[in-house]
Amino acid sequence: MIDINKEIARLDWNKEPKGLYEPIAYTLASGGKRVRPTLALIAAECITNGGLINSMDDVLPAALALEVFHNFTLMHDDVMDRATVRRGRETVHVKWNDNTAILSGDQMLIEAYKLLAKVPAPKLPQVLNWFNEMATGICEGQQMDVDFEHMSQVTVDDYMKMIELKTSVLLANAMRIGGYIAGATSVQQEALYQYGLHIGLAFQIQDDILDVYGDPKTFGKAIGGDICANKKTALLITALETADAETKAELLQWLMDTEKKEEKIAAVTKIYNRLSVREACEVIMEQEMALALAQLDKLPQNEATERLRVMAEQLVNRKN
Amino acid sequence: MIDINKEIARLDWNKEPKGLYEPIAYTLASGGKRVRPTLALIAAECITNGGLINSMDDVLPAALALEVFHNFTLMHDDVMDRATVRRGRETVHVKWNDNTAILSGDQMLIEAYKLLAKVPAPKLPQVLNWFNEMATGICEGQQMDVDFEHMSQVTVDDYMKMIELKTSVLLANAMRIGGYIAGATSVQQEALYQYGLHIGLAFQIQDDILDVYGDPKTFGKAIGGDICANKKTALLITALETADAETKAELLQWLMDTEKKEEKIAAVTKIYNRLSVREACEVIMEQEMALALAQLDKLPQNEATERLRVMAEQLVNRKN
Repeated sequence: MIDINKEIARLDWNKEPKGLYEPIAYTLASGGKRVRPTLALIAAECITNGGLINSMDDVLPAALALEVFHNFTLMHDDVMDRATVRRGRETVHVKWNDNTAILSGDQMLIEAYKLLAKVPAPKLPQVLNWFNEMATGICEGQQMDVDFEHMSQVTVDDYMKMIELKTSVLLANAMRIGGYIAGATSVQQEALYQYGLHIGLAFQIQDDILDVYGDPKTFGKAIGGDICANKKTALLITALETADAETKAELLQWLMDTEKKEEKIAAVTKIYNRLSVREACEVIMEQEMALALAQLDKLPQNEATERLRVMAEQLVNRKN
Repeated sequence: MIDINKEIARLDWNKEPKGLYEPIAYTLASGGKRVRPTLALIAAECITNGGLINSMDDVLPAALALEVFHNFTLMHDDVMDRATVRRGRETVHVKWNDNTAILSGDQMLIEAYKLLAKVPAPKLPQVLNWFNEMATGICEGQQMDVDFEHMSQVTVDDYMKMIELKTSVLLANAMRIGGYIAGATSVQQEALYQYGLHIGLAFQIQDDILDVYGDPKTFGKAIGGDICANKKTALLITALETADAETKAELLQWLMDTEKKEEKIAAVTKIYNRLSVREACEVIMEQEMALALAQLDKLPQNEATERLRVMAEQLVNRKN
């Protein structure tokens, strides 16, 4: 198995001008779960039944491109969200400045395409098209997320579309690109894509649930952050969709409150409990999980497929 | 001959979410000289002796990619430079906001790669590599330009390296990519590249000269803007390199002055005159021009080649 952290560490950023490359090195060295390149590699292993080291070498540049691309989106998102901390360290625009985060972020996107250009030529056009489509989806999802802040009516369907674009298409394409380079048939490509898409959706909904119902001891950040920020999560949208007039008015009243944080979190959680939105969201999450797991039957059955099954199950049971 | 403005107008930005695509439409509709796609198409015409409509169709997506890419750099540069006006219209970050300019700019870079993905498959890997190399050069050049602001010692060589990256590699690659897709031999590819590189350098030095010595009636903007902003131009760097201790002290004294604009422009221009920096820069510009024109002998001689010759000469004699 390729050690993805070691491969990322081997990328050379000791180049001039330092002001451009040091923020890239800093960002890529700050860790993260490396979910996207790992998925690409597991997808490839699944297709090759864990064999064929050449295929894995062919997949590696695309896997790295996905991680570099993901980190580019974080660098620019942090500027746009004015986020000050990422993975326990100062964000680039805080440590340096906004202009550095913009320009080094741009260069990181270009670096992703440089890695992608190493995909074997016969497979390059298809991979490039998928990658472009994915990158577009992420920008569109980010814009939808911004638009939602100012919209009074957001449906669960709108929300699912937004998180599909913002989160899931990257996981879905990581799976599909990894599998395709390793020689997946078109049925397998589609199964890999759908697996990534649906675990991405399940993951995001679980994220929303944990923000309210996570265990403060294991969650890693403050409970109720989304409630304080009036973030349009699966929980809030479901609550607004299912509440009667009176409860909805009560909920909207709390949304307008920006002062009494603790009371707001407690009150909104109580409304969520009354409306059983957690259970409603868990149903959606489990549907997505089932759709993801069903894809695995269409793939070769081996250690990699088993790992994909375990990853999906860990996702539902995770604490942070 | 393909009408590049018509082709740009045919690109469809009437898509959702509008907040992402409207700023792209706005930017691409704001005109500009379309130098880069035009160079790509002329290079292709030169190689095909003006024939072979298929080759031109093959070149068009790459030509459009170059223009979209160029406009992406302008959108992000305007944020970084806090520029409020571009081509007589409000910049995107003024008309919308910084976040919009960042995100729509990112999407524009991705759109450039989408157009590039339409390059005929056998030529895609090479074109993608050149495009990536060019995009990297432009980010590096932009960072060097930022770094120069804080450096006391910048040599003419440093400056030439910076403008080569920031401006010339895009023109050079426009020529090379256009020619390559149209079937240029490797000798022709190199000649096209060098032509673009050297007219780019000549163009930038002429830009620096016109800012001080242009005719206020025809120049289009205020004379002396670079002097007021202490911009490290070819003129200033040459002056600092060639001045004796006394003149250098006088020049540095004026650089520290940020109040008396008219007097500063007059005084610095007088120092430039005394040191004959205009003439020194004109020598460099003419050397670059000669290097550019010499490349044309290595290319098929036809109407397109003649147009390249005329473009180079117009460049030296331009008034704005």
